[in-house]
Amino acid sequence: MKIVAFGEIMMRLNPEGYGRFVQAERFEVSYAGGEANVAVSLANYGMDASFVTKLPDNPLGRSARDAVRRFGVDTGDVVWGGPRLGIYFVEKGASQRPSKVVYDRAGSSISLASRGDFDWPRILRGAKWFHFTGITPALGGELPAICLDALKCCRARKIAVSCDLNYRGKLWSRDEAGRTMAKFMPYVDVLIANESDAADMFGIVGGRSDVEKGRLDRDGYISVARQLAERFGIGKVAITLRTSLSATDNIWAGLLYADGKASFSPEYPVHIVDRVGGGDSFGGGLIYALATGRKAQSAIDFAVAASCLKHTIEHDFNLVTVDEVNALAAGDVSGRVQR
Amino acid sequence: MKIVAFGEIMMRLNPEGYGRFVQAERFEVSYAGGEANVAVSLANYGMDASFVTKLPDNPLGRSARDAVRRFGVDTGDVVWGGPRLGIYFVEKGASQRPSKVVYDRAGSSISLASRGDFDWPRILRGAKWFHFTGITPALGGELPAICLDALKCCRARKIAVSCDLNYRGKLWSRDEAGRTMAKFMPYVDVLIANESDAADMFGIVGGRSDVEKGRLDRDGYISVARQLAERFGIGKVAITLRTSLSATDNIWAGLLYADGKASFSPEYPVHIVDRVGGGDSFGGGLIYALATGRKAQSAIDFAVAASCLKHTIEHDFNLVTVDEVNALAAGDVSGRVQR
Amino acid sequence: MKIVAFGEIMMRLNPEGYGRFVQAERFEVSYAGGEANVAVSLANYGMDASFVTKLPDNPLGRSARDAVRRFGVDTGDVVWGGPRLGIYFVEKGASQRPSKVVYDRAGSSISLASRGDFDWPRILRGAKWFHFTGITPALGGELPAICLDALKCCRARKIAVSCDLNYRGKLWSRDEAGRTMAKFMPYVDVLIANESDAADMFGIVGGRSDVEKGRLDRDGYISVARQLAERFGIGKVAITLRTSLSATDNIWAGLLYADGKASFSPEYPVHIVDRVGGGDSFGGGLIYALATGRKAQSAIDFAVAASCLKHTIEHDFNLVTVDEVNALAAGDVSGRVQR
Amino acid sequence: MKIVAFGEIMMRLNPEGYGRFVQAERFEVSYAGGEANVAVSLANYGMDASFVTKLPDNPLGRSARDAVRRFGVDTGDVVWGGPRLGIYFVEKGASQRPSKVVYDRAGSSISLASRGDFDWPRILRGAKWFHFTGITPALGGELPAICLDALKCCRARKIAVSCDLNYRGKLWSRDEAGRTMAKFMPYVDVLIANESDAADMFGIVGGRSDVEKGRLDRDGYISVARQLAERFGIGKVAITLRTSLSATDNIWAGLLYADGKASFSPEYPVHIVDRVGGGDSFGGGLIYALATGRKAQSAIDFAVAASCLKHTIEHDFNLVTVDEVNALAAGDVSGRVQR
Amino acid sequence: MKIVAFGEIMMRLNPEGYGRFVQAERFEVSYAGGEANVAVSLANYGMDASFVTKLPDNPLGRSARDAVRRFGVDTGDVVWGGPRLGIYFVEKGASQRPSKVVYDRAGSSISLASRGDFDWPRILRGAKWFHFTGITPALGGELPAICLDALKCCRARKIAVSCDLNYRGKLWSRDEAGRTMAKFMPYVDVLIANESDAADMFGIVGGRSDVEKGRLDRDGYISVARQLAERFGIGKVAITLRTSLSATDNIWAGLLYADGKASFSPEYPVHIVDRVGGGDSFGGGLIYALATGRKAQSAIDFAVAASCLKHTIEHDFNLVTVDEVNALAAGDVSGRVQR
Amino acid sequence: MKIVAFGEIMMRLNPEGYGRFVQAERFEVSYAGGEANVAVSLANYGMDASFVTKLPDNPLGRSARDAVRRFGVDTGDVVWGGPRLGIYFVEKGASQRPSKVVYDRAGSSISLASRGDFDWPRILRGAKWFHFTGITPALGGELPAICLDALKCCRARKIAVSCDLNYRGKLWSRDEAGRTMAKFMPYVDVLIANESDAADMFGIVGGRSDVEKGRLDRDGYISVARQLAERFGIGKVAITLRTSLSATDNIWAGLLYADGKASFSPEYPVHIVDRVGGGDSFGGGLIYALATGRKAQSAIDFAVAASCLKHTIEHDFNLVTVDEVNALAAGDVSGRVQR
Repeated sequence: MKIVAFGEIMMRLNPEGYGRFVQAERFEVSYAGGEANVAVSLANYGMDASFVTKLPDNPLGRSARDAVRRFGVDTGDVVWGGPRLGIYFVEKGASQRPSKVVYDRAGSSISLASRGDFDWPRILRGAKWFHFTGITPALGGELPAICLDALKCCRARKIAVSCDLNYRGKLWSRDEAGRTMAKFMPYVDVLIANESDAADMFGIVGGRSDVEKGRLDRDGYISVARQLAERFGIGKVAITLRTSLSATDNIWAGLLYADGKASFSPEYPVHIVDRVGGGDSFGGGLIYALATGRKAQSAIDFAVAASCLKHTIEHDFNLVTVDEVNALAAGDVSGRVQR
Repeated sequence: MKIVAFGEIMMRLNPEGYGRFVQAERFEVSYAGGEANVAVSLANYGMDASFVTKLPDNPLGRSARDAVRRFGVDTGDVVWGGPRLGIYFVEKGASQRPSKVVYDRAGSSISLASRGDFDWPRILRGAKWFHFTGITPALGGELPAICLDALKCCRARKIAVSCDLNYRGKLWSRDEAGRTMAKFMPYVDVLIANESDAADMFGIVGGRSDVEKGRLDRDGYISVARQLAERFGIGKVAITLRTSLSATDNIWAGLLYADGKASFSPEYPVHIVDRVGGGDSFGGGLIYALATGRKAQSAIDFAVAASCLKHTIEHDFNLVTVDEVNALAAGDVSGRVQR
Repeated sequence: MKIVAFGEIMMRLNPEGYGRFVQAERFEVSYAGGEANVAVSLANYGMDASFVTKLPDNPLGRSARDAVRRFGVDTGDVVWGGPRLGIYFVEKGASQRPSKVVYDRAGSSISLASRGDFDWPRILRGAKWFHFTGITPALGGELPAICLDALKCCRARKIAVSCDLNYRGKLWSRDEAGRTMAKFMPYVDVLIANESDAADMFGIVGGRSDVEKGRLDRDGYISVARQLAERFGIGKVAITLRTSLSATDNIWAGLLYADGKASFSPEYPVHIVDRVGGGDSFGGGLIYALATGRKAQSAIDFAVAASCLKHTIEHDFNLVTVDEVNALAAGDVSGRVQR
Repeated sequence: MKIVAFGEIMMRLNPEGYGRFVQAERFEVSYAGGEANVAVSLANYGMDASFVTKLPDNPLGRSARDAVRRFGVDTGDVVWGGPRLGIYFVEKGASQRPSKVVYDRAGSSISLASRGDFDWPRILRGAKWFHFTGITPALGGELPAICLDALKCCRARKIAVSCDLNYRGKLWSRDEAGRTMAKFMPYVDVLIANESDAADMFGIVGGRSDVEKGRLDRDGYISVARQLAERFGIGKVAITLRTSLSATDNIWAGLLYADGKASFSPEYPVHIVDRVGGGDSFGGGLIYALATGRKAQSAIDFAVAASCLKHTIEHDFNLVTVDEVNALAAGDVSGRVQR
Repeated sequence: MKIVAFGEIMMRLNPEGYGRFVQAERFEVSYAGGEANVAVSLANYGMDASFVTKLPDNPLGRSARDAVRRFGVDTGDVVWGGPRLGIYFVEKGASQRPSKVVYDRAGSSISLASRGDFDWPRILRGAKWFHFTGITPALGGELPAICLDALKCCRARKIAVSCDLNYRGKLWSRDEAGRTMAKFMPYVDVLIANESDAADMFGIVGGRSDVEKGRLDRDGYISVARQLAERFGIGKVAITLRTSLSATDNIWAGLLYADGKASFSPEYPVHIVDRVGGGDSFGGGLIYALATGRKAQSAIDFAVAASCLKHTIEHDFNLVTVDEVNALAAGDVSGRVQR
Repeated sequence: MKIVAFGEIMMRLNPEGYGRFVQAERFEVSYAGGEANVAVSLANYGMDASFVTKLPDNPLGRSARDAVRRFGVDTGDVVWGGPRLGIYFVEKGASQRPSKVVYDRAGSSISLASRGDFDWPRILRGAKWFHFTGITPALGGELPAICLDALKCCRARKIAVSCDLNYRGKLWSRDEAGRTMAKFMPYVDVLIANESDAADMFGIVGGRSDVEKGRLDRDGYISVARQLAERFGIGKVAITLRTSLSATDNIWAGLLYADGKASFSPEYPVHIVDRVGGGDSFGGGLIYALATGRKAQSAIDFAVAASCLKHTIEHDFNLVTVDEVNALAAGDVSGRVQR
C-alpha cells in the first residue's frame, strides 16, 4: 500500500555517548524529521512508503535523501533546490540531566518552498494514505497553503490522512498553531497527539485535571481524546502517554480513541538508549496497524510496542521489523538473548 | 594445575554500543567460544590452562590464537588447517529489545576436524582437568567421536572432567543432543547447566513446575540437579539461575548440588554491560573453585560472583582476578571507587 | 569575584566506555585534579576563577593548562618547571564491579615545588576566596609549608578560605594527615568532607554509630559536622552523603552545618555516567552559592544539585551552567527533553 | 536507461587505517562485490541500475541490500534465501607492504543458487544493458548455467552485454575459467580485462613481450585487445593498465579497442586511499560512457578518470558524480580546494 | 603586544579521514575562521591576542568561544546574541580528487550584527595591531561599515592594520568586492593576498602573464605586489605562492614586497595532512614576525615555514610554537624524530 | 632456538593519526621497548623468544606483559614489583613536521631493579642468544651491573650476545655512555648501530667525512663499522642507514660488516606509517637471519626488508611473517594486492 509522508528532513548531529556539546570533538551524523521517521518505519514494515520534501541540490541534501532511501523509502518525488538543509543538534541527557535539542532549521529549502514546487495530483497518484505533522505548517512561508493543497487533493481522491499535532513552541505561537491546525482537522482521519499538544494547540484539557506532576489519570486522557474527536469530527484519536522518571528511565504507553471507545496499551518501563523519534515511531506503528486493518486494541498495542522498541535504538529511525514488534506486543518483555 | 579445554573459538563481531546490525559502520572484533572463555578465566585465575582447537592457517586463525594467548592460555596444541574460522555476530539489546546472535560457523576448521587431528595422550599429558561443552559435539562430523576419544583418555588417566550442557537448538535437535550427550555423561565429574538445558537435552524438569514465567521455585531446581546427578551418576551438578527482567537488568544466581546437598549462591541484580559469555564465566569460576579445593558453598559463591562480574565486562572473556571475585563473594556489592 | 584554587592537575586516562585497563587500545585523555575541577566549576558559573599549580614546560604540561583555560579559568599564575605531569588512570565500574583509580603522580612538578615558586601576595592580589584540598599537602615535600604560606597570606588579606579534606590513604597516613590538616583548620572558613574523611583524619565519628553498612543516620552526620565546627572553630561545615547501591546507581545528598544549624539537601537517585569529580563539583557549587550570598538551605541545595548533575557528565569537570543547576534545585527531576 | 548487474555482494571487513588483521579491535563494515560496485557507479551517474543476487534472509543479508539501495540501485529483484552472506577481509597495505584480501565466501547464498531462482525474462524486462563478471560463474554450482540463461535472454531481447573477465585464481583454475568464459564470449558486446586476465583465462599475451616488470609497451596491450576482439568477435575491448610503484603509489590508465582502433587514456599517478574496487569503477565508468553514446576516446577518458577518483575513496563503491569525473577528464588534476 | 582580530568564527564539520560527505557517520567538530585562525597562531606565539566577533548565546556559540580561549586568545570582547553560528563542511580530497568546502553561514549572528554592537574605542584600547580579512565585509549587512569604523579607530590611535584579501566568490561579486575593499586599503599597513585575489578583486595581474597553468614566474608575482603597494600606498604586501600538484602534494612558498624590494621564501614540497587554514597561518606568522621587528627576509621565511607546518596539522588552527617554526625556517626539513 | 631479551617495556601513548598532543582527546595505547620489540619480532618469526624485565604488579604492568605474550613471547621470567610502569608519548610527524617523543620513564620498576632480582643462570638456562640495547644500562641504578651479570653468564655458557647501541642523550651523557658500553663490548658478538651512535658513544666517525647533510658515503660507513669491529674485537657489526627526506618519506638501507667484508642491502624508499621501532625491527630481523645461519648478504637483506616493512605498521612491534619479509627481500616491491 502506497503511503506518502510530507515534511522536513534535517541533518541530526549529536555528541557520542553522553558527551555535552562543549566537549564534543565528534558528532554522530544522521538525518531525520518527524515525517521522514514515519516513512522509514513504514518501509521497514514492508509498506510502499514515499517521502516528499524539498532539499538543496548539494552533497548534504543528497545524503539526507540517501538516508531514507537506504531503508527502502521512495524518494523519487523529492524536489531539489533552495539554499540549505536544516540541522538540529541533540545532546543526550542522563539521570537528572535532560536531553537538549538545538534547532538550526531557519531558511531551509523546504521552509522556503512554494506551492508550485509540489504537483500533488501526480505525487499522490495511487496513494492510499497521506501523513504529515504540525511541524510542517509551522515552518511558515507557503507551507500552510501547501499542506492544504495536499489535503484537498487527498479528500478528492479518498486518501486517508493522518496527522501528528507535534506542537513546537519555538516555531509558532499557540494561537497561530491553533488557528492553522484547526483548518486542517476536517481533513484528518487519524489524529495523534502527546499529552500536551491538545492543550497547547486547542486549549483542550482533561476533565478534572491537567498535565500536573507528569501523570494524568486515565479519565482525563480519554476526555482529551474525546474532545478532539468530537470538536473536529475525527474518527480516531491516539495519545502517547509518557511518564518521565528521569532522562534515563521513562514509562511509556498510549491510548487509541476510536468509535467512542478508548483502548489503552500496556505500560512499558523503558531504559532509554535514544528517546528522540519516539513519538514518530508511535505514529509509524499506528499507521501500519490501522492501514493493515487491525482492530483498535491490537493497533494501539502494536504502536506502543513499536515505539517502546524505538527508545532502545540510536538516532531517530525505528529500525525494527513487524516480527520484532509483534513479539513484544505479545508480551515477551524479558529481553532474553535470541540465538 | 594444568587444565585442558577443547572446543571452537570464533571471531565475534558486534556493532559498537547499542547499534543494530543494519546501522553498523564498524564492528568490534574479538574472539571467543564456550571453552576458550573458560580457559581464559582459568588462566586469569593463575591456572595452567591450555586451549585445544583446530584453526585455519591464515591471519584470522592466528588472531584467534593470539587472543587467548594474550591472557596466558597455552595454545601450543592448537591444530592448524581447514578452510575457515567460524564467525558470530552479536547485537546488544537494551530494555525490551533482546540481544541477537547470528551464527556463521558452518564449515569451520574445527567442525571439519578428524579424529586423527588430536593426539589426546600427548595433549592430556600432565593434565588434571578436562573441560568441554555440548556445543563441541553439536558441531557434527567427527566431533562426537573426538570428544569420546578425549573422555576415554581422561578416564584412563584419572583426569577430572567438567561439561557444560549448553544446548544450541540451531546446531542439533533435542533428540540428537540427548542421545549424544548421554553417552558422555558417564565420564563427567562436574556438570553445568542453565535453567533449560536439562529439559531440552534430557527431558528433565523440576518436580511440580517447569520453566514458566522465567522463575522456578528453588525446590524445582534442586529436583533438576538431583535427577541429573542420579540418572548419570555425576558427583556435582551446578545450575545457573537467570531471571531476565529485561535486556538491561537481570537477576543472577546459581546452585551447586553435591553429595546430595544443594547450596545456593546469593542473588545479584545485574545492570548488564555485556551478557554474552556469562554462563562460561560461571563454569570458569566453578572449575577454579573446585579444582583448588573449595567446599560447595564457597565454590558456588565464587562461581556466581565471578559470573556476576562478567556481566559488567565487554566481550566474552571474564577479565577479573581471584581477588576481585573474592571481594564480591565476601559481600561488597557497593561498587565504591577503589583508589 | 576572584577566586584562587591551588593544587595539582594531572593527566587523566581512561578506557572508553566500560573497558578494563587490560582491554584498552585507546584511552580518553582529559586533565583534572581536585582544585582544578573546582576552578572550572566556578568559571562555568561566571566567576573570575584562577588556578595555580606547577607544570612541566612540555606539551603535556601545556595541554593541562589549556584544558582549564578552555573553560575560562585564568592560568596566568601557573609556575613552569619540574620534571613531569602527574597521571592517573580511571577504569569505569558497572553494577557490582567497582571503578578503579591507579595513580602515577609521584615525582610530579607540583610535588617537587619549593616555597620560592609561589609569590602568594602577588598571586592573591584582589582575590576574595582561596580554595585547596587535603590532597595538596599530602603530596609532601614543601607543599605543607607552601599551603601554610598561602593561608597566612589569606588571613592577612581577609580572603575567605575553603578546604575539602579529601583524605587519600595512598598519599599519607591518617596520623600525618591529621596532624598536618589540624594546623590548617584555624584558617578555614568553609570545610568540606565526605562521610569518612572526618573519621580518617581527625577520628571524629557520629554520636552513636559509625560508617556502618554505608548509611549513617542524620543525627550522626550532624554530630560529625558539629564536632568539626566546634573543634576547629569553623563557621560552615559541609558533608556529602553518598549511598552506593552499586557502581551504576548511587543516592546522593549533602548537609551544610552553619551557625549551629544543619540543612539537608534532597536525596537524588543518580544513574551514573562518570562519578569521578563528584565531590569536587559539590565544592564548586557550594563555594559559588556561599560566595554569591545564598542562605544555608539554598546553598546546600545548589551544591548537591550541581554535583548530582556532575555524575551524568564524562570526565572530572562539571560542565553545567547556573541555570541548569537552578532548574534541578527547583525540583525538575524529570529529565524531559528540552527543545 | 535500465541496466541490470548480476553477481555476488559480500560483507567487506577491514581494519581501520593501516592496521593489520592481528591488531584489529575494530573492523570497518561495508558491502561490496564486482557487479554491485558497477551498479552503484551507474546509479550515481543517474542511470536506472538494478542489482540482482541471492541473499540470506537475515539482518546481514538485509544490510547488504540496504547498502546498494542507499545509492539508488533498484534491489526489487533480489532473491531471498540460502544460508549465509559471503565475507571478505581487506588489510590495507602501504609502501612496500601489499594489501591483503582474505575471502570467506564459500557456501554463500548466491553460490548455492539454482537456475529456478532467477526468472530472467521478468528481471530483464525493459533492460537495455546487462553486466556481469568472471567472478559470478567462478562461484561454481549452477552459476555458469544461470549466467548462460541470462545471456541467452539478453540475446533474445537485444540487450547489450558487458563482461569484466576478473580472473580469480582462488575460485577456479585457468583451464576451467578459460573453457567457461569462452562459452559466454559470443554474447558479449563490451569486454573488460586487466593486464593479466587475458593471459590467465585465454592464454592471450602481447605480441613480443608479456607482463614483465609491471609495464608492457603500448603495442603489446593493443595486441592483446585485438586478439580478444578478433577471437570472440567482440566489438569493444577495454584494458586497464596499472603500474604498481608501491602499495601507496600507482600509475593508472586504460585503453579501449573499438572498431579496430585503440584509444589510450592519459596516465594518472595516484596516491592511493583505497584501491579495492578500482577495476569495477572503470567498468562502471565505461558502461556509462558507452551507454550514453560517447565516442571511444571520450569513453576511455571518462572510464579512467572515474576509476582514478575511486582510488581516493574508502571502500569499494565509487561515490563520485558525472560532473566530478568530467572535471578530471577535462584535465584538472590540480586537486585545488573547491569552495 | 595586544593584537585584535575581527571576523567570523564558524563550526567546522568534516568526515574523518578521506571519507566523502555521503559516507560520513561521524563528523569531526572544530571551530575556525580566517581571523580566529590568525588569533590562535598569535596566542601560540606568545602574543596577547584578542578575538572579536558576535556569537549566538547558546551551547554552540559558547563552544566556539571556548575553542579559541583554549589556546589563550582573549574572548572577553565577544558580543553575544543573534540567531545562529555559521557552519562549514569540509571534505578532504586526495590525489586527483579535490577537497570540497560547503558553506552554511548565511544568517549567522555576526553577519547580522549592527554597528552599535562593537564599541571600537573600548575594544581597541591598548592594542597595537588590528587584523581582518576580506571575508568579514563580504558577509554583508552592516559589516562593511563596521569594518570601516574599526579602521578609522585604528588610524586615530596609530594601530597597525593587516588585511588578508581572501576573495570568496560565493559571498560577493568581484565588482562589489573590489569597490568595498578599495575603501579599506588606505588604512592597511600590511596586505596579504594569494595568487588570484589581486586579480579577482582589483584586476591586477602580473606583467606579462596571468595565473595560467598554476605557476607564475617570479617577476609576475613581484609585479602584482608592486601594483598593490603602489595603487593603495601600502608599505608591505605579501603573496602566498601555492603550486597544487595534487590534493595531496603542493609546493608552498611566499614573497614579501616591502620598501620596493621583494624577498622570496624557500619553496617547500608539502605532503598535506589538512590544507584548510594554510593561508591564515601564513598571516599569523607574518604578523608575528613583523610585529616583533623581523626584517623582510626573516619575516617571509618565518611566515612560510609556519604555514608549511600548518599543512601537517588537522583542522584550521596552526598549533605550532615559535621554536618549531624557527627550526624549520633555519633549514631543518628532514623531519627526523625528536626524542 | 631460545633467545632472551632484557630491557624496559613501557606504555606507549600516541594521538590518533597526525594529531598533536594538545589536540588529543584520545591516545592509542600500546606497549613497547627496544628489547621487547626485538622479542616480538623473533616470536613472530617462530623463535622461542623470552622477554625479561621488571614490572609493577598492577593492571598496567600486567597489560604490558600481556602485550608481548599475545604474540607468543615467553614472559615467565618477568620480575614483579616496584612502583610504576614507564610511559612514553609519541606524536606522529608529517612532511616537514618531525615526530616527537616525550619520555616519562624516570622511576620505573625496571630502572629501580636490583641485582638480586635477576637469577641469570636460571633465566638463561637453555638459551642460545641474549639481546640487549644501550638503553638498558642508561636507565642507571644497578642496571649496568645487572647487564654485566647477564653478559658474564652468557660468556660462561657460550650464549651469543647481540647489542644495539641505541644512544639516548636524555638518559646519559656521551662520556658516561662510552665508558659503560665499552665495558660490555668484549662480550658482544653482533653489534648494531645507527649512523650516529658510534660517533656519540665512541667518537668513531667515517674516514674522511662525518654525518653531514644526512648522507654519508658508503666508504665512510664501512670505515665506522670496521673501527667498531676492530676496536672491540666484534665479529659482526651492522649499521642502519636512514636518509630522512621528510617525516613522511625516508630512504632505508643497512650494511653488515662481517669477517672484514661489508655487505650492503638495497635501498628502499619508504612512505611512512609509523617509524618508531624501525631500528628494533632491524635488530630482530638480523638476529633471526644470523641465528638461522644466513650468510652476510642474505642476513642484511632480510634485516633491512623486515625493517622496511615495519615502517608501514602502526606502533612499535613489527608484525610480519618470515614469508612476508622473504618476499620483499626477493625483490617484490610492487605492493600489489594479494588475494
